[in-house]
Amino acid sequence: MSHILNFNPGPAILPKEVLLEAQNDLLDYAGTGISVLESSHRSPEFVAIQEEAETNLRALLAIPDSYAVLFLQGGASQQFALAPMNLLHDGQTADYTNSGAWAKKAIAEAKRIGNVNVIADTNEDRPTRVPDPGELDPTPGAAYLHITCNETISGAQWKTFPNPEAPLVADMSSEILSRKIDIDRFGLIYAGAQKNLGPSGLTVVIVRKDLAENAPADIPAIFRYQAHIDAGSMFNTPPCFGVYLLMLVTRWVEQRGGLAARQRINEEKAARLYCAIDATGFYRGTAHIAHRSTMNVTFNLSTEELEEQFASEAAAAGLKGLKGHRSVGGLRASIYNAFPLEGVDALVSFMQDFERRNG
Amino acid sequence: MSHILNFNPGPAILPKEVLLEAQNDLLDYAGTGISVLESSHRSPEFVAIQEEAETNLRALLAIPDSYAVLFLQGGASQQFALAPMNLLHDGQTADYTNSGAWAKKAIAEAKRIGNVNVIADTNEDRPTRVPDPGELDPTPGAAYLHITCNETISGAQWKTFPNPEAPLVADMSSEILSRKIDIDRFGLIYAGAQKNLGPSGLTVVIVRKDLAENAPADIPAIFRYQAHIDAGSMFNTPPCFGVYLLMLVTRWVEQRGGLAARQRINEEKAARLYCAIDATGFYRGTAHIAHRSTMNVTFNLSTEELEEQFASEAAAAGLKGLKGHRSVGGLRASIYNAFPLEGVDALVSFMQDFERRNG
Repeated sequence: MSHILNFNPGPAILPKEVLLEAQNDLLDYAGTGISVLESSHRSPEFVAIQEEAETNLRALLAIPDSYAVLFLQGGASQQFALAPMNLLHDGQTADYTNSGAWAKKAIAEAKRIGNVNVIADTNEDRPTRVPDPGELDPTPGAAYLHITCNETISGAQWKTFPNPEAPLVADMSSEILSRKIDIDRFGLIYAGAQKNLGPSGLTVVIVRKDLAENAPADIPAIFRYQAHIDAGSMFNTPPCFGVYLLMLVTRWVEQRGGLAARQRINEEKAARLYCAIDATGFYRGTAHIAHRSTMNVTFNLSTEELEEQFASEAAAAGLKGLKGHRSVGGLRASIYNAFPLEGVDALVSFMQDFERRNG
Repeated sequence: MSHILNFNPGPAILPKEVLLEAQNDLLDYAGTGISVLESSHRSPEFVAIQEEAETNLRALLAIPDSYAVLFLQGGASQQFALAPMNLLHDGQTADYTNSGAWAKKAIAEAKRIGNVNVIADTNEDRPTRVPDPGELDPTPGAAYLHITCNETISGAQWKTFPNPEAPLVADMSSEILSRKIDIDRFGLIYAGAQKNLGPSGLTVVIVRKDLAENAPADIPAIFRYQAHIDAGSMFNTPPCFGVYLLMLVTRWVEQRGGLAARQRINEEKAARLYCAIDATGFYRGTAHIAHRSTMNVTFNLSTEELEEQFASEAAAAGLKGLKGHRSVGGLRASIYNAFPLEGVDALVSFMQDFERRNG
């Protein structure tokens, strides 16, 4: 099994050390004789897990006290609704940027809740790209500006974040913890855990406390960020095992040099892969060179048949999950935090060999 | 560690065999070289897991094709909002029964969404109890009648379900799969998994398809049962590891005689424990004898100090999680499906010994 390289876009590869520790703990956490899966969320053991998870995240991302960190459920897809429910008041407009499939879903959901102004749309652009901050024409008095930091499907990523007057709201699912960011620029960050943080079923929300506090009064309690802040993410039973894995993953990141080291390695991984793509005309990157994702490297071959052959031969060689999203086809190598540099080198070798045989 | 008896109210004990299998699979599921925690939810492996989970649940509960089975997130607390959002139309009224702490939360959330009529209220009754079906005076034309099948905190349980004209909506979190039920009587059943089904972070919804179909058009897509039905519980990334554990748990129940066997054993466990409680005046059951829960056995001692002493001496002897909910105090033994009969006998022995020493 050690020869398997997991390029899945999410749920995605987890650090081997984390899986081994979770396996070791699975029937007996910290000598309690009880699994984390069976522990009360009010037990001292689990409370300590959740506290460390938050502490680690705060340290890694340098999150100030003026922000709350929440461990919720429902994925980024639920945040597509919760962000406007909490931050978009009657009579206000929320600005959105349409940079691809995920931004589009966020926009569709927000439109069911309030007034939405799409102030930039690169969804149809080829090569795929996200808007440049300079292209944006924000609505005066907008409640917030929403961006999708990294489009997991198209492989386009914001390299420079906009700096609007309104709070910046960001879906950071497929890139959180992959690079250093300046939290102060954001009003709300949300991320499904299943790429860089842990397993599916856990959502991390980082929200400026003053924004959460001022949410409209008439939304159901379970959807109010403030209710979860007041209850320390125990308004209802948290997804405990996910929080536990996030604790282990953030510990793993910290022990290996934090975000500075992660960013350096992620840039190196992406550079080697894009370099292989650009080496000849055989492979073609699908994202605009200025917006190429460090997390999801998307590329094409000359025909769908060849792409199909590439994905299946790669899988047979132990390089799994390289097929592009079914909505766009092509090929995609998801190389999140836990994906090793040597794995990228193995893919590059496979690509060169495949080209020799089919070029 | 084998001497630990886990009486936690939820997250709660899981079958040892399930934990061992999950531990064995944790780094390599079914020879894929990838953990279930890292598998794409679209992978053939995970699709097969989710299919078996649904098949097992349908078989155990005899769920007809006219009902959808959904694997969602957010816990029962989120269903407190989703039930009225999907089933309570403008101008309609939903009937609720207030049988305790959980019913009260469901009612509070529903009131934020639509018209609610509380047609029976036993919340303040002592001994604690749920309403009798005969006590109910349903609202003509009500959208549905909501009940909390088992009040985890007070330890009161519906033994006979009402049979109203309106669809019956049931929070079955702390008793699902504990006894045979007649699905046809229900319009909607929901349950957080963390008692009888698996870990926290997974919610099972069983909904009559015609009810889901007719939900109001203006609710966000993520909150529409129909959206999740259309997508086969993959409208967004499911809580994959929870679904996997539910598959193992339902397999475990099936292999041990299904719900008939579970019901017999659960009744035997509860009978032995209530018998010990009733043996002398030293322990006093808190629930009305006609409504005593088979899942959460609640009792008192003469003073809080004695209860405190009982819980801490029990914990020291390996009987963990016996403290009552912090809102009501007292003692509570949660004896869900996975809790063994011998564990109940061990508690009975401890109770007898404790009484000898302190009676």
